[in-house]
Amino acid sequence: MIPKAATERLSVMYTLLGQILENGTDDAKLISSKRIGKLLGILTHTVRKDLSFLGGAGSPGKRFSTKELKDVIAEKLGLAKRKAAVIGLGKIGTTIMEYDKFSSSEIEIVAGFDSDINRIDTIKTKIPLFPSREIGEIVKQKGIEIAFLTSSPESAKVCFERLEAGGIKAILNFTPIILESEKIHIRNIDFILESTILSAMIGLDNLEKKSIANNKK
Amino acid sequence: MIPKAATERLSVMYTLLGQILENGTDDAKLISSKRIGKLLGILTHTVRKDLSFLGGAGSPGKRFSTKELKDVIAEKLGLAKRKAAVIGLGKIGTTIMEYDKFSSSEIEIVAGFDSDINRIDTIKTKIPLFPSREIGEIVKQKGIEIAFLTSSPESAKVCFERLEAGGIKAILNFTPIILESEKIHIRNIDFILESTILSAMIGLDNLEKKSIANNKK
Repeated sequence: MIPKAATERLSVMYTLLGQILENGTDDAKLISSKRIGKLLGILTHTVRKDLSFLGGAGSPGKRFSTKELKDVIAEKLGLAKRKAAVIGLGKIGTTIMEYDKFSSSEIEIVAGFDSDINRIDTIKTKIPLFPSREIGEIVKQKGIEIAFLTSSPESAKVCFERLEAGGIKAILNFTPIILESEKIHIRNIDFILESTILSAMIGLDNLEKKSIANNKK
Repeated sequence: MIPKAATERLSVMYTLLGQILENGTDDAKLISSKRIGKLLGILTHTVRKDLSFLGGAGSPGKRFSTKELKDVIAEKLGLAKRKAAVIGLGKIGTTIMEYDKFSSSEIEIVAGFDSDINRIDTIKTKIPLFPSREIGEIVKQKGIEIAFLTSSPESAKVCFERLEAGGIKAILNFTPIILESEKIHIRNIDFILESTILSAMIGLDNLEKKSIANNKK
């Protein structure tokens, strides 16, 4: 079992290695744990520990083939092509549908849903669109594993229940509604929360400066 | 010093307590570490440890006044009203500008920037808009502390340098470009990365099921 925090960091490394290979920078051939740590702002020790979950992290200072390391991470994390759907076709939903970076990723968006049938008629896209009441059926039928939930807060719970009924495996939740499930993996993207964390980091800096200034008095 | 991970979780708790108070649910008067842990899907032990950074976490089973706990977290994290700017007025940028949840938060968006002057003329908003070349000057002048960077990947570096010159303190980075700074707090929102993490969680489930099935043979 790879712990959750390590799974997250290994996913970050996988994404980083993909970017490096795409950009063909100096690191595109060989890369070390130290260099990965530096690029991601995490301790070399942590990188090495995470890589040890892949079986054989190598000795300190060892350099890995960038391409091979990316492939090993993919294999050990069970990464594979997965189908995804966008729930809610407002601004964020349509942005995700058009997000061209997905084309080079392993995530393929195969359906979009909205409760507003007029909206479905208006949006121009190659991706098939459906009314929200068909979520369960289409998710099952197309084998969709991941959902981007960008509906209104009011309809989030209903959409969630339909996704659950369709057997969805993971949800990226853009709504402020807290979703709970034992079976479904859920990650939340919350602009307010992210802003609060940044505000706290600024706040702690300020408190520290103040305390240093007080000590000098 | 409150560690980074605890700062993040305390910010999550602060946001949660705010939601509870707003919704007036059963927890709006008194709340325990255990209940917070349950709502957030983290261990009670971790909640209690995080709260201990506030000075005096109380004994196991103790219930806190929800309102007071929220206020203490705000005080100890140095949370305060902060001015923010949106850089790049594409779909994500304009969504953030219109995001009505900000009005009830302590973050006030006071400026928007785009390199396309025509776009600035077209967008209807009460928030003052400026061309991107004025980022440094306006950030300094208005005392803007937080930036939502939603520019194109190509212009991300230039915008970042201008924000740095203006003395910005924190950036929520929506571009796939890796930003590095010793002075500025940076958090990344990356849809591809989030999808990859979810894909890894599904992948690890699948590998585990496979290994259980193999062991049964």
